Amino acid sequence: MVKQIKEVMPHIAFGGDYNPEQWDEQVWLEDAKLMQEAGVNLVSVAIFSWSVIERKEGQFDFAWLDKVLDILHSHGIGVALATATASPPAWLSKEYPEVLAVQENGVPFQVGSRQHYSPNSKRFRYAVKQLVTEMANRYKDHPAVKLWHINNEYGCHLAECYSEESLQAFRTWLKDRYHTMDNLNKKWGTNFWSQRYNAWDEIQFPANLPTFYNPSQKLDYKRFMDEAIFELYKTEKEVLRDITPEIPVFTNFMYEFKPLNYFEWAKDMDLVTWDSYPDPREGKPYRHAMHHDLMRSLKHGQPFYLMEQVTSHVNWRDINLTKKPGEMRLWSYSTVARGGDGVMYFQWRQGRAGAEKFHGAMVPHSNNPKSRTYQEVKQLGNELKQLDGLVDARTNAKVAIVFDWENWWAVELEGKPHNKLSYLNQVYQYYRVFYEKNIAVDFVDPTSDLSDYQLVVAPMLYMIRDGEEKNLEQFVDQGGTLVVSFFSGIADQQDHIHLGGYPAPLRKLLGLTVEEFAPMADEETNTIVANGEPSTVDTWADIIRLEGAKSIATFKENWYQDSPAVTIHQYGKGSSIYIGTNPSEAYVDNLFEGILQQLSISAPLSVPTNVEVVERKNSNETYLFILNHNTDPVTISLDKGVTYTNCLNKQKVTDEIHIGHTDVAILTY
Amino acid sequence: MVKQIKEVMPHIAFGGDYNPEQWDEQVWLEDAKLMQEAGVNLVSVAIFSWSVIERKEGQFDFAWLDKVLDILHSHGIGVALATATASPPAWLSKEYPEVLAVQENGVPFQVGSRQHYSPNSKRFRYAVKQLVTEMANRYKDHPAVKLWHINNEYGCHLAECYSEESLQAFRTWLKDRYHTMDNLNKKWGTNFWSQRYNAWDEIQFPANLPTFYNPSQKLDYKRFMDEAIFELYKTEKEVLRDITPEIPVFTNFMYEFKPLNYFEWAKDMDLVTWDSYPDPREGKPYRHAMHHDLMRSLKHGQPFYLMEQVTSHVNWRDINLTKKPGEMRLWSYSTVARGGDGVMYFQWRQGRAGAEKFHGAMVPHSNNPKSRTYQEVKQLGNELKQLDGLVDARTNAKVAIVFDWENWWAVELEGKPHNKLSYLNQVYQYYRVFYEKNIAVDFVDPTSDLSDYQLVVAPMLYMIRDGEEKNLEQFVDQGGTLVVSFFSGIADQQDHIHLGGYPAPLRKLLGLTVEEFAPMADEETNTIVANGEPSTVDTWADIIRLEGAKSIATFKENWYQDSPAVTIHQYGKGSSIYIGTNPSEAYVDNLFEGILQQLSISAPLSVPTNVEVVERKNSNETYLFILNHNTDPVTISLDKGVTYTNCLNKQKVTDEIHIGHTDVAILTY
Amino acid sequence: MVKQIKEVMPHIAFGGDYNPEQWDEQVWLEDAKLMQEAGVNLVSVAIFSWSVIERKEGQFDFAWLDKVLDILHSHGIGVALATATASPPAWLSKEYPEVLAVQENGVPFQVGSRQHYSPNSKRFRYAVKQLVTEMANRYKDHPAVKLWHINNEYGCHLAECYSEESLQAFRTWLKDRYHTMDNLNKKWGTNFWSQRYNAWDEIQFPANLPTFYNPSQKLDYKRFMDEAIFELYKTEKEVLRDITPEIPVFTNFMYEFKPLNYFEWAKDMDLVTWDSYPDPREGKPYRHAMHHDLMRSLKHGQPFYLMEQVTSHVNWRDINLTKKPGEMRLWSYSTVARGGDGVMYFQWRQGRAGAEKFHGAMVPHSNNPKSRTYQEVKQLGNELKQLDGLVDARTNAKVAIVFDWENWWAVELEGKPHNKLSYLNQVYQYYRVFYEKNIAVDFVDPTSDLSDYQLVVAPMLYMIRDGEEKNLEQFVDQGGTLVVSFFSGIADQQDHIHLGGYPAPLRKLLGLTVEEFAPMADEETNTIVANGEPSTVDTWADIIRLEGAKSIATFKENWYQDSPAVTIHQYGKGSSIYIGTNPSEAYVDNLFEGILQQLSISAPLSVPTNVEVVERKNSNETYLFILNHNTDPVTISLDKGVTYTNCLNKQKVTDEIHIGHTDVAILTY
Repeated sequence: MVKQIKEVMPHIAFGGDYNPEQWDEQVWLEDAKLMQEAGVNLVSVAIFSWSVIERKEGQFDFAWLDKVLDILHSHGIGVALATATASPPAWLSKEYPEVLAVQENGVPFQVGSRQHYSPNSKRFRYAVKQLVTEMANRYKDHPAVKLWHINNEYGCHLAECYSEESLQAFRTWLKDRYHTMDNLNKKWGTNFWSQRYNAWDEIQFPANLPTFYNPSQKLDYKRFMDEAIFELYKTEKEVLRDITPEIPVFTNFMYEFKPLNYFEWAKDMDLVTWDSYPDPREGKPYRHAMHHDLMRSLKHGQPFYLMEQVTSHVNWRDINLTKKPGEMRLWSYSTVARGGDGVMYFQWRQGRAGAEKFHGAMVPHSNNPKSRTYQEVKQLGNELKQLDGLVDARTNAKVAIVFDWENWWAVELEGKPHNKLSYLNQVYQYYRVFYEKNIAVDFVDPTSDLSDYQLVVAPMLYMIRDGEEKNLEQFVDQGGTLVVSFFSGIADQQDHIHLGGYPAPLRKLLGLTVEEFAPMADEETNTIVANGEPSTVDTWADIIRLEGAKSIATFKENWYQDSPAVTIHQYGKGSSIYIGTNPSEAYVDNLFEGILQQLSISAPLSVPTNVEVVERKNSNETYLFILNHNTDPVTISLDKGVTYTNCLNKQKVTDEIHIGHTDVAILTY
Repeated sequence: MVKQIKEVMPHIAFGGDYNPEQWDEQVWLEDAKLMQEAGVNLVSVAIFSWSVIERKEGQFDFAWLDKVLDILHSHGIGVALATATASPPAWLSKEYPEVLAVQENGVPFQVGSRQHYSPNSKRFRYAVKQLVTEMANRYKDHPAVKLWHINNEYGCHLAECYSEESLQAFRTWLKDRYHTMDNLNKKWGTNFWSQRYNAWDEIQFPANLPTFYNPSQKLDYKRFMDEAIFELYKTEKEVLRDITPEIPVFTNFMYEFKPLNYFEWAKDMDLVTWDSYPDPREGKPYRHAMHHDLMRSLKHGQPFYLMEQVTSHVNWRDINLTKKPGEMRLWSYSTVARGGDGVMYFQWRQGRAGAEKFHGAMVPHSNNPKSRTYQEVKQLGNELKQLDGLVDARTNAKVAIVFDWENWWAVELEGKPHNKLSYLNQVYQYYRVFYEKNIAVDFVDPTSDLSDYQLVVAPMLYMIRDGEEKNLEQFVDQGGTLVVSFFSGIADQQDHIHLGGYPAPLRKLLGLTVEEFAPMADEETNTIVANGEPSTVDTWADIIRLEGAKSIATFKENWYQDSPAVTIHQYGKGSSIYIGTNPSEAYVDNLFEGILQQLSISAPLSVPTNVEVVERKNSNETYLFILNHNTDPVTISLDKGVTYTNCLNKQKVTDEIHIGHTDVAILTY
Repeated sequence: MVKQIKEVMPHIAFGGDYNPEQWDEQVWLEDAKLMQEAGVNLVSVAIFSWSVIERKEGQFDFAWLDKVLDILHSHGIGVALATATASPPAWLSKEYPEVLAVQENGVPFQVGSRQHYSPNSKRFRYAVKQLVTEMANRYKDHPAVKLWHINNEYGCHLAECYSEESLQAFRTWLKDRYHTMDNLNKKWGTNFWSQRYNAWDEIQFPANLPTFYNPSQKLDYKRFMDEAIFELYKTEKEVLRDITPEIPVFTNFMYEFKPLNYFEWAKDMDLVTWDSYPDPREGKPYRHAMHHDLMRSLKHGQPFYLMEQVTSHVNWRDINLTKKPGEMRLWSYSTVARGGDGVMYFQWRQGRAGAEKFHGAMVPHSNNPKSRTYQEVKQLGNELKQLDGLVDARTNAKVAIVFDWENWWAVELEGKPHNKLSYLNQVYQYYRVFYEKNIAVDFVDPTSDLSDYQLVVAPMLYMIRDGEEKNLEQFVDQGGTLVVSFFSGIADQQDHIHLGGYPAPLRKLLGLTVEEFAPMADEETNTIVANGEPSTVDTWADIIRLEGAKSIATFKENWYQDSPAVTIHQYGKGSSIYIGTNPSEAYVDNLFEGILQQLSISAPLSVPTNVEVVERKNSNETYLFILNHNTDPVTISLDKGVTYTNCLNKQKVTDEIHIGHTDVAILTY
């Protein structure tokens, strides 16, 4: 039986990727001592070590790794041991070229970078299984090993493969899904453009096409590749579970990563972890905050680990700005506040060679213990030691935003009325409201149990699979408030139109029909008027016919002037709001201000702009995080009559608290 | 003997593409009834039906199509029956991969979209012939069949193919054209860059080259591909003519379509049809008006059909704006005014699946008979019934613009003095003048009989094939007025320079030599002065030496200041004007104002801005179209003493007429 | 023993590429006469003549070339005879497809353009050797032949090849360089990302990779391709040296050409020549002036030939502006002033066909002897006859700029802190100062003897190979002044970091450590303050810790405000200045103003803006070039008491000289 994360790691995890094979052996001991000093309690080892572990096929060299793990353990540092499968060695693709992923033009990827394997290669899966079995048997009882780190950033560079073996696998996948050609032809709408298939082996990739692809086929190809990579993950997981049933496993997820349906993946993981690299030029990283909330939601509130961040600057952007003093620490506390029980870095020691040598690390090239970078790491590592009590504490959100990877895939397929729509931007647009108001938000998928929430927002939920509208109807019927934005409820799981007037499955719930779409040109705007107040909208206008709903804002310009832009509909004990355009931030802020008031949902504290307030709770205590993202200090009024304890300095606090710029307070009460 | 179009379709054709195979059979009868209601008298059927007609090689299923045609016929709806060859079925390319077109990188296109065939594939031509033969034999006597619609938008996505079979065909084509290697070497100028060939099989595509191609070779490749696709068309046409000698045939042309020399194609067609998709954001679609005039000119004034337009919005632009109320109707009347005897749509019923499901249609997804879209269709369809008398009426133009596809190909090849020149934009620049002045314009090729015209404009006629200057000389000599713009008369049919001073073949006619070209940078302008009036020019300056011509405008700036920019030359009984720069619209308007006055060419009526006035005449009557593109109503003064009849309401009109915004009047007298 | 250039060509060489094979024989005599009239004394013949010389394998036709050379010789025109290898004939790649270079996608380049060969093809090298042997034997004693022009613009279009034969050659090259796999693995840092190799044949190109390449591997690939092309050059050179030991050889270099390490190439050439095509829109071509100085420096001051320029305009830019009257002459004199003993054009007669027919030439399409183009050529050709005394005169520079091709390659590899840095722009930034102040500058590589210079500037010298810092230390120690700009001294020859604090090898010399890099976003700036004067900086800030150096300018903004931006350090008898940011032109001007004053380095004359002053000296005389790039005339004060002679009109000049716009004076004294 797999152990609880809290049992394995009863502290906030702190550390990073550790690649000792890039350094001479004498550095290893120096590393372990520095780690101790910096408060490191967990490192990820062997992520890219396949070629130094399995030197040739079946010839394993574990001596160096034994030594590394022993040194770490003797210094009290735990290990998230990687399965070393992230990038295959040169001998493998030399010996078995079929393991190589293939580009759309038929040319295989090559060794010389990383992740050049095809997830569909049986030979690759076999090689992976061999390696993981050896790793697991070797280290199953090593006391340093706390967690298994499977592979690394699955699909990061390669989420598509056009090899012959992938094509065969795609056809098999389709056969498993559709069973008969007739069914596939119907589900793909192949009578359009004479695309009818007689046999599975007539089917090709949605690639190398003269013009638009079949959207149903393209969507299935995305599903297929997601599942192919997931199968590869599960191949590893099964070996590990078999040999080390008690050790939790994870792989590290990524930011704004479209190809993998992380809601599905999370079901097969013991711990959600992810890699976060906000661009310092963005200032307050609210998009990363959203991803923290999303990652926490993947396993329904179970804390996640931030598996990678950078101390200073990355090296893969055009221009790589560096974090200012204090920012790394502040943003790390935002991670913890939003459900992070681990704060890890890529990487421990900055590399001397290779493609990432200018990527920041916990120990920079200078190896100078007085460097700003190392000093900030050390401060944070030692501070986090005071937060053991926080481990596994939870978030209590009354608001949920619907997030659906398949919808993301479908709504951004080509051939839409407006082909510059971004699903993420629509989600950010609504998330931002709650972020700025310091209202906790969970993410849910369309079939999630919504009974814990008072307010659910579904931005641009283009795809409604057959029957999914029922879940939303039930939520509203029982008293919930639902907000749906434009271009929702249009297509089914095959990306076929729900006929009968847009948005057919939601018409009853929303009390309206969308007669027409009127996308706006890039430079075009319109105005909507709500309660006599005008505000600017852009991107899209729905031509709405009310069928029970009431208009709460109308368009002011163009041929559809005076027609409804935003509507509200009483349904059962609740109400549903429809936003048939892309409103300004001010309008959205205002709209939700009203909704939240009515639902009596409010922030833990009232604070100035750019102060982030978040609560985590366990059975005993509430942790109140107050993060000052301003460049000036702030003074925050606290709830009268409560005596708080500041976790970072153990002082008692009442009435108000003064927080320096780029600083944080964590209060318990 | 093939029938006249007027005999086959004595009404303005109204209808659209009809794809019943995408719908259940019970929808077909509903469709036919709705069509009747909407005034539909012609639909195109089976365009993309190959895979549902020929289910496997040689196994034909016509049952469904029989039923469709019967239903249509029983409702009085004619059929433009497609040959179903627009996109081949999956089994064909599976069985015979050589039918696939090949990309420049050697990778074949694949099934999954449309039009993935190579026009040079003998196997594909054979398959096409088999199918068309079956279709023609099956339906040769079906009373619904009025016209044959061959293939669809030839070359739309694939006007180049790099297959081995195409390479062999290219070599054969070259051998037929040049006979000997010595001749080819001379005509391609292969002594440049050591490109001499000893044998036909040494010749490659102008592709996969380290730097600039040989322009003569590239030009020939364009000719070859145009002719290859034309051969494919003729393969179908011959079968049809053989089996159904009385039924007229056509294929549908496209907008701004460079790869096919439509002047040549039209010679082999009984009816010119084309597909027009103006972007609603452009407002008044004068570029589409030009294409109407061009399409009418392809068969020397014979009316064309608009084969496809959209009721509302397409789905293949980045952002697909929708037509405002009335615009579709107004633009349809512009089509009719300019020689369109058919107004058709893609498509009848909006698709539920596939790449074009968000493309507007006559019956939208909602299937709501009260939808704006369907209502506008129905209004127009019923109005057009009143215009039977207009069918086959002609346009009487005194102005012609030279348009030459081979010139288009040649002048936009790389390696020019100015490589951002657009042939179309130069043509639009001069067409616009006449469009805005409501002066009828025909298009001609350089060898056309010009004797019916008073004024001929030849914008940027870079290529003058040997002897073609004679036609222009004769026109001017006999009293015509010719206007030629810069970068004309430079190269011959091989894209070799006419030596002896630019523009060698036109120097005598124009009375000048162009000593040098002085292209201008993007941000650069100059000023020309004509009769003391300055105006701005850009893009290009010719350094002109007068040799008989007189300067009528001079440059004011730069090192060539005071040298001629625009000249006039008396030649025989006429005169030729040369424009050695890219003038402002104001200058061009002014210049032609004078020319038209002198030639006594004027508009049918004097009207406010943005009112389009066009005449069509038959032996009995003149039809005067007045289209108000303004957003306000206008009142138009009519010729005194004439009593007009308004075709759309049968009322008599004298002295003046009031026309609402986005409305039209069609007066006969 | 090879002859001195001065012995072979005792005049300023004047002429151009001559391609008689593109013209009928009767034109050749006309050409020779016109050349005589224009002062032409040297033409390059046969550059692209392979296909007309070797008609089939081993079948040579020299008759036409014999005739051409005889005609030229009889008119007193010398020939730089090309080896005709610039582009192989079609029969060669037909017969031996392995000679074709291959693209990254595996598709071979094809005949139809030029330079489609792989430099690694043994079969191609064999064919080249055969041809050059024939050429050399045929013309070794022809009196017209003054020089051998080997190939043409090596690597211009193809500096990379991905053929199987190139891959084998790359592996062999690596084996020769690294000897053992262990060594290669260490030098490439292959323990990063699991890239360890067991065998040479596991190594692939740095191509077709899912993400970032291994920078050490990429750098070696660049070295390998440079050397492969160099080997091809040497193949030809050896044949020629063997058969015609007295005739000097060259190949023509290019502008801003990164792939070839011209410092290395020049060692194997008797004469440096290059092709210069400044864009007329740039106005005063200071970047081309820099390249003249660089080309002169390649052989340590030995004069170069400008092998190609254009009379008027090229045809390969988007928009090809033409040189204004006088500019071609003025810029040609700038060439001569900076060490050019030859002024040549591409090409003699403007082509009628082919990809370059709109490229200007000495004789334009009109063939008009009164054309501006030809008149300007003729004037210049006849003027240059008066400058025989100048031949082989030298430049005396006290300032040197370090220029290093391998550094260029390395610093622009991906994955840097700032990935928009341009090495050339950093060099231009410092060159510009001296150009505008009319201070002579040589270019040196990091290992050059620096003892002749007082001031050395090393812009962005990212790569310091092991031990190279010694040369700079010695220069400063002995009294020199060194200026180094940011991101210098970071990596070694493998592109591995010099550990121990940036810039490790230069810390002692510069007296500082760079703690961190703080790249700036595109729109970001900072201010530095020096002596109380603020000026704007952008792109980059170093966080500097002083270790002996003194700050002479500090940052004013951002979190590193008040930290040093520019420093000076006394070292031995000299001093070293470090610029840790990208300063404004004004700051750099000011900084160097002070340095030059202190070192008593000054211009030959004090002149107004945009007047270029350059000196060349031989044992007897000093030639003082004064070029007026202004659009107005200028009057220049000369040194009192000196009597100058104006070479172009033989007049004596004292006290001052008046020079018209776009005009030049060449004074001797």
